[in-house]
Amino acid sequence: MRRESMKQTYLDHAATTPCYPEVVDEVTRQLLNNFGNPSSLHSLGVSARATLDSARASVAADLGCDSSEIVFTSGGSESNNLALRGTAHAHQYAGRHIVTTAFEHESVLKTCEALQAEGFEISLAPVNGKGIVQLDELLRLLRPDTILVSVMHANNEVGAIQPIAEITRAVKKFRPDIFIHTDAVQTVGHVPVDIRELGVDLLTLTAHKFGGPKGIGALYTRRGVRIEHQIAGGHQEHNLRSGTESVALAAGMATALRLSMRDQDQRAAAWRKMRDSLLAAILSAVSDARVNGDYIDRLPTNLNISFLGVSGEDMVLRLDRRGIQASSGSACGAGHGALSHVLAAMNVPRAWAKGALRLTLGEGCRDMDQSYVVEQIKAVVAELRSTSSFRSNGLLLTHQ
Amino acid sequence: MRRESMKQTYLDHAATTPCYPEVVDEVTRQLLNNFGNPSSLHSLGVSARATLDSARASVAADLGCDSSEIVFTSGGSESNNLALRGTAHAHQYAGRHIVTTAFEHESVLKTCEALQAEGFEISLAPVNGKGIVQLDELLRLLRPDTILVSVMHANNEVGAIQPIAEITRAVKKFRPDIFIHTDAVQTVGHVPVDIRELGVDLLTLTAHKFGGPKGIGALYTRRGVRIEHQIAGGHQEHNLRSGTESVALAAGMATALRLSMRDQDQRAAAWRKMRDSLLAAILSAVSDARVNGDYIDRLPTNLNISFLGVSGEDMVLRLDRRGIQASSGSACGAGHGALSHVLAAMNVPRAWAKGALRLTLGEGCRDMDQSYVVEQIKAVVAELRSTSSFRSNGLLLTHQ
Repeated sequence: MRRESMKQTYLDHAATTPCYPEVVDEVTRQLLNNFGNPSSLHSLGVSARATLDSARASVAADLGCDSSEIVFTSGGSESNNLALRGTAHAHQYAGRHIVTTAFEHESVLKTCEALQAEGFEISLAPVNGKGIVQLDELLRLLRPDTILVSVMHANNEVGAIQPIAEITRAVKKFRPDIFIHTDAVQTVGHVPVDIRELGVDLLTLTAHKFGGPKGIGALYTRRGVRIEHQIAGGHQEHNLRSGTESVALAAGMATALRLSMRDQDQRAAAWRKMRDSLLAAILSAVSDARVNGDYIDRLPTNLNISFLGVSGEDMVLRLDRRGIQASSGSACGAGHGALSHVLAAMNVPRAWAKGALRLTLGEGCRDMDQSYVVEQIKAVVAELRSTSSFRSNGLLLTHQ
Repeated sequence: MRRESMKQTYLDHAATTPCYPEVVDEVTRQLLNNFGNPSSLHSLGVSARATLDSARASVAADLGCDSSEIVFTSGGSESNNLALRGTAHAHQYAGRHIVTTAFEHESVLKTCEALQAEGFEISLAPVNGKGIVQLDELLRLLRPDTILVSVMHANNEVGAIQPIAEITRAVKKFRPDIFIHTDAVQTVGHVPVDIRELGVDLLTLTAHKFGGPKGIGALYTRRGVRIEHQIAGGHQEHNLRSGTESVALAAGMATALRLSMRDQDQRAAAWRKMRDSLLAAILSAVSDARVNGDYIDRLPTNLNISFLGVSGEDMVLRLDRRGIQASSGSACGAGHGALSHVLAAMNVPRAWAKGALRLTLGEGCRDMDQSYVVEQIKAVVAELRSTSSFRSNGLLLTHQ
């Protein structure tokens, strides 16, 4: 097979997205013409500052918040770390208990582990088999010393959208001074995200998940919410994140967010249609397959299917040789060989979890040839099953 | 005065530098053609990973260290925070005492303040009137519980180059297990920096100070030196800094470093000549002026002159209107109105410190018209002195 001539179908948009051409143009333009340090007093500094301010205002407007509430960071992981550590360190005298869920991104879970080592207590709210956080169970975990609840807006592996507005209302009713953070890395730019409607205090986003460059993200921090900075220095970003600001990337991020929200509803509907059609075709072509995660409250671009008797990682490698880029779980966990902690939290049986394949749609697969993709998935599953001890089993065939 | 038609002379390269055109090309090319997530298993991930690895290898080769010793970060402030907090947190059971100097960058000093609040003890080594750390005084501060010494390679305001190799040898002789960090943000790309020769355990660099993009830097971490990560998550960057790697910026940084080291000696000699000539012309045109900082052990691109009876910030604003971009101190401290902590540490009298002007050379002023610059400085000083109570004073005229 000659790679060069092969049609490539990128189905891994949850890992990262191609930049919009307009974003590349904007970044290039800023790098070439606007190189000043925003902290400099002279005209080049003023110009860089103006571009940064305007990027911030644009991002804020697109999220329905105020400019002063947007802190630019280097990306989603840093934003999640800043949200959790920043809140914990600023409010540790009010309490040292944090509630999150078992299927958050590693940058939340590992930060919680680090905070635990510092003496904070962490409770993990369970999720159901469809990948939805159980509100009543979460509420039962709240304590008088709870300072923070962090629940992702949509799960990165199964795309299940969490009832954040409902969670916020219920937690604030329990006690209004508990802070709510949501990791919205998978939703911003893909489905409507109205910060005021969600009611959260802190929200994480990152540009490269919605057609922007890697290396820039943001943390929304509601006015009046006090968090401690994690990078000390020159007082940039409302004194919440020091370091010379990356003006070009900020401008690129603002452009990407603006573009990703243009005709968002129509585009979401188109992705949903494409996704549903792909799913139906796969399920009719391949036996012993089932969908992971809720199918209603789900990102329109996400499909996560398990195939019995195969390994997801093997599928990814073989599909890649056939020109299809997919993933077996999150990119951050790729290659570690361990089973997905997300599917484990959803109580997906090991045999099914092992064979999970994530297909995520976006601008990089607009011209997808569905029948080619389905054919390749069918062929790869057959190949892998023929070399494993897999035998179709009546019991496993029923979608548990 | 019409700005558009005015010749612009950028003399603020210590704040930030214009990107080399080749760097912009490289960043643009990567953003367009290599958007994969380096953690993805498929070919787009592999390609992104290969580019990242090759950028890392290139940076390591240019610094004389191994690839495994380079951790990419978002820039100098993050690298300094990671070096200090990372070492402090990893070795706090060996000791909780840190030695640094009074004239470090704010990202070092503020991090030390934060560590002090956590229970670490900080000692500040004094610098002499020329801006050079006094080794004997520094050695006197070492204690049995000292775990880290952090001294910048060259000061960002006065350009004084510190005897890091000598400091390292002396400190390691006192006790080999004290870690040495140097903030080399001002030297890398400008003067030879050979990490093995310096003997340090940790070294900070950032791309935008040597013709690279803003938003990326690195921390050299000598093999075997254990530090604690500050951003937790997906185990990127040898598990020392989580977050999806900014492949395009890393490639741009490697290109910038390579270019900035090409003919470095000849270029440094050219800058030195230009700088010396500029200084001589300024001193002969303007009375009551003197140089701040050592003039021998100094970055060839740095000039820091104080003018009695004026304010540095006023000078910066007025020079800007005449097409010359300069600074009164560090960009990070710009606009705060406070006197430079660097000049204070050097015991520069307040009257002189107030009138400090930093002129830093680089690619953005290759075609500088020296007589125009000197003329404008002379005019601006005269303007400002005429509106202040300044009277030339025989005593102050002598360079103290």
